[in-house]
Amino acid sequence: MEKGLIKAIETAESIAIFPHTSADGDAIGSSLALALALKKTGKKVIVYMEESIPDTYKFLPGSELAVFISENDDIMGLNIALDTGDTARLASRAALFFKAPATINIDHHITNTKFAQYNHVDASAASTGELVFLLLKEMNYEIDADMAKCLYTAIVTDTGGFKYGNTTAETHRTAAELLSTGIDVADLSQKLFDNTTFVKLKLTQKAIELLELYENDLLAVTVITQDVLQSTGAKDEDCDGLVNIGRSIEGVEVSVLIKEKSTNEIRVNLRSKTYVDVSEIAAAFGGGGHKRAAGCTIKGRITDVKEQLINTIKDKLKRR
Amino acid sequence: MEKGLIKAIETAESIAIFPHTSADGDAIGSSLALALALKKTGKKVIVYMEESIPDTYKFLPGSELAVFISENDDIMGLNIALDTGDTARLASRAALFFKAPATINIDHHITNTKFAQYNHVDASAASTGELVFLLLKEMNYEIDADMAKCLYTAIVTDTGGFKYGNTTAETHRTAAELLSTGIDVADLSQKLFDNTTFVKLKLTQKAIELLELYENDLLAVTVITQDVLQSTGAKDEDCDGLVNIGRSIEGVEVSVLIKEKSTNEIRVNLRSKTYVDVSEIAAAFGGGGHKRAAGCTIKGRITDVKEQLINTIKDKLKRR
Repeated sequence: MEKGLIKAIETAESIAIFPHTSADGDAIGSSLALALALKKTGKKVIVYMEESIPDTYKFLPGSELAVFISENDDIMGLNIALDTGDTARLASRAALFFKAPATINIDHHITNTKFAQYNHVDASAASTGELVFLLLKEMNYEIDADMAKCLYTAIVTDTGGFKYGNTTAETHRTAAELLSTGIDVADLSQKLFDNTTFVKLKLTQKAIELLELYENDLLAVTVITQDVLQSTGAKDEDCDGLVNIGRSIEGVEVSVLIKEKSTNEIRVNLRSKTYVDVSEIAAAFGGGGHKRAAGCTIKGRITDVKEQLINTIKDKLKRR
Repeated sequence: MEKGLIKAIETAESIAIFPHTSADGDAIGSSLALALALKKTGKKVIVYMEESIPDTYKFLPGSELAVFISENDDIMGLNIALDTGDTARLASRAALFFKAPATINIDHHITNTKFAQYNHVDASAASTGELVFLLLKEMNYEIDADMAKCLYTAIVTDTGGFKYGNTTAETHRTAAELLSTGIDVADLSQKLFDNTTFVKLKLTQKAIELLELYENDLLAVTVITQDVLQSTGAKDEDCDGLVNIGRSIEGVEVSVLIKEKSTNEIRVNLRSKTYVDVSEIAAAFGGGGHKRAAGCTIKGRITDVKEQLINTIKDKLKRR
């Protein structure tokens, strides 16, 4: 890792960490782990969130370091963006990010725009958590069980439980080191993956009912309207992971979850299995992501959005 | 590992490997990996199955070495039981097992009865696959990608994708070594975990519908009758994993899947989260397994079996 980047961290007395908006397990886990490690050295550290931490991750150590800009918009000595591909993912915090005298950007998205003063982007890493793990080791910080819990969460969520193609031998070696700190994997896995509620199960039941197959069963499409959410009593965040149902069907190459956020705003999640690069599809609608997992937000009516998406994906499915 | 055990393998010219009846990913994966390794040294090797390999595992390298006793009941120089806690798990093959001049038993079940001439039982291992991995290393066999696929399958299925409490740092270090052989984790995970069919999805939908909670929502019970299977078009093996739906609900400690095999034969799968030892419950009905995952087969009518199970589990739930 660049010497300037490490020196910037070592010399800063106050540091704010910026995970991306709609923060996921990797963004939150890597941010909290880094915050805990830096705090242990006596620095003033906060994690600037765009939204509150999702319920699933609230149990993580270091959650108490998370604040909103509205609560505290002090200018810190150093701002570090984690898992953030571009400044759009900083959302309303973008202006504040650049006010610090020094800025760092650590990320594993291949599309990263290197927007900070020091940029460490490694697309070969399965998660930003692994990059923070290496940073802490390089800086000779001892990784305790609390930090290990956060980093394990980062890794396990971004690799789909070590199942996605981004998982490497290095990912498992890192997991082995994190487990050596004595973390309770069963407890952690249960909190991260086995935290279904009856409401979520009923939403799953509904999603299976609504799932449609197109293009000789290569494409699975699930449309979740506001009506569906209301009828099951489910929240927006309960839809997380529903896109994987379609992906799990034998023979399906692309799975799309089309979720009505409001009458005119549609959130789209895309997953593929072997050959379609869904980041290209997401990019065509102003979004981004990885080859096998991407997303975008589209303005429009849900029926129109569905048709546009199917037409775009149809083309990609042919180019095998 | 015992020198006698290794010598028995080295000197045998013909070897039969016996995975347990109703073979799972660990039994099949460890058996095929060992068979492939031994065959490479020029030995005559077969894997004696009680039933045919389940569809999910048919893609594994070495599947062609699997035979039934009816097809070939030659007495081999050495018989090796893998992942087999006692001779009952050898089912109809038990008599043949003891006819060989030498017998070996390699297993990770704490309840193993050490029924063979050479017994290597290590309950600290998450899977028998890990024990076969160590055996191959100790014997200086090179683990190629085909063997690695089988061993990875063994490990990943018995640890629930590295999620169960039996997962250790050693498990991840073994996975790292297996990945280094160049196996395609995404492809393998997809075949092992993302192989749902529409029929299975519809069965899942039905299982969610039928799930009942008891004992202040600490106990989840799902009853799958022959009628349910027939109405969804699902097969018996499609029920694999359904017990985890109940376990995944926040607050549930024990999940039970009660499956009607025939009018008078009920198969029961048990899972627990933190404190109930379900192997004790299974043992009370003549079955066995581990603390967090166990099973038994009960003769009787499904409604009676359900009542008996709920009463037995009720007691265990109180002893927190």
